[in-house]
Amino acid sequence: VTSSPALLLDLDGTLVDSVILHTLAWTRALEEAGTSVPMSRVQPLIGMGGPQLLDEVIGRDAPEVERAHGELFEKLRREVRPLPGAAELLQHARAAGLHVYVVTSSKPSDAEFLLGLLPGPSVDGVVHGDDVSRTKPYPDLFQVAVDRWGLDRDQCLSVGDSQWDVQAARQAGLRGVGVLTGGTPAERLFSAGAVAVYRSCRDLAEAPLAAGRR
Amino acid sequence: VTSSPALLLDLDGTLVDSVILHTLAWTRALEEAGTSVPMSRVQPLIGMGGPQLLDEVIGRDAPEVERAHGELFEKLRREVRPLPGAAELLQHARAAGLHVYVVTSSKPSDAEFLLGLLPGPSVDGVVHGDDVSRTKPYPDLFQVAVDRWGLDRDQCLSVGDSQWDVQAARQAGLRGVGVLTGGTPAERLFSAGAVAVYRSCRDLAEAPLAAGRR
Repeated sequence: VTSSPALLLDLDGTLVDSVILHTLAWTRALEEAGTSVPMSRVQPLIGMGGPQLLDEVIGRDAPEVERAHGELFEKLRREVRPLPGAAELLQHARAAGLHVYVVTSSKPSDAEFLLGLLPGPSVDGVVHGDDVSRTKPYPDLFQVAVDRWGLDRDQCLSVGDSQWDVQAARQAGLRGVGVLTGGTPAERLFSAGAVAVYRSCRDLAEAPLAAGRR
Repeated sequence: VTSSPALLLDLDGTLVDSVILHTLAWTRALEEAGTSVPMSRVQPLIGMGGPQLLDEVIGRDAPEVERAHGELFEKLRREVRPLPGAAELLQHARAAGLHVYVVTSSKPSDAEFLLGLLPGPSVDGVVHGDDVSRTKPYPDLFQVAVDRWGLDRDQCLSVGDSQWDVQAARQAGLRGVGVLTGGTPAERLFSAGAVAVYRSCRDLAEAPLAAGRR
């Protein structure tokens, strides 16, 4: 077990501005399958993995809709931009001696593409949707991270923009911090158990990093 | 002054599912002009007119960005769908003897196109962004409606998905009801002065319509 503190960062809506484009891709994919769903119903579900999202919306997994979302998002993802302060957060965390990992429900190819948008040093590791059978809000992604890198739960801080991040982290025994850059209101993040909510990664980067410094 | 009660309905995010596509069009337009803005910053501003939105984001009006947004949204608007219950709300309101007007910051061509997505009887009238120099959150659009159709303010109920609708209605002396279909959280609608918040137009359509029945 490593003694150094670690940040476990969500990707979509936390480091990169992709929530609305994911929402559009899911809505288009569902419509292609004959299901018309209001975008305001889909948007709060971004951050879940595909099977969990589809279970919420249509009550079952639907591999063909997942596949369509993947193709549609691949066309849209060139429009994704890094969120303000994302690169600074990585730099500051590294300078402060933290390990930095990304824990995302996304597919490996999307995660790789989106992380490539961030300048600066790469992260220490990535856990993605293909590493587990149940993505967020289940704790499995975080449990893989803890096991794979031998993390001390008390020295970890999870950062994410949705209640699915916070719920998954809590269920894995980790403290979770929220950011508002995915559009989820602060109240919902606190209700899910966030210990704090920052406006953005920029504000978190500029705050004293308290991970593991209980 | 007419004695019959009236519904004053917002369009984008209230009757049709266009908030995310407007967000995308504005973000693309701003980026074309060299300004990168997080989508979560733009989305809560939808419902304002273009000049007001641009003043919030870049501190000034920018006709070239407005024009670009107009062209980009025109390409996206074929993807807009009616929101659940929108057509039913119009039908129920008509059946209950209410007049139904649309009060929108949008341009006339977009308003016409989007209203055309709704089946059933057309509305009694539309006030749009070109009718005023200051759109929502200023009260001007509602004041035009009151004057043009000789409405009794106490007999009117405004319905909208954003705090800009609620603020504008209140400043014009009208009661405002919020709906969640544009993604604005209920708390923000209540803070702006909403007398009630419904999940969607469907829920409002199924509730006893109390407009003007004080």
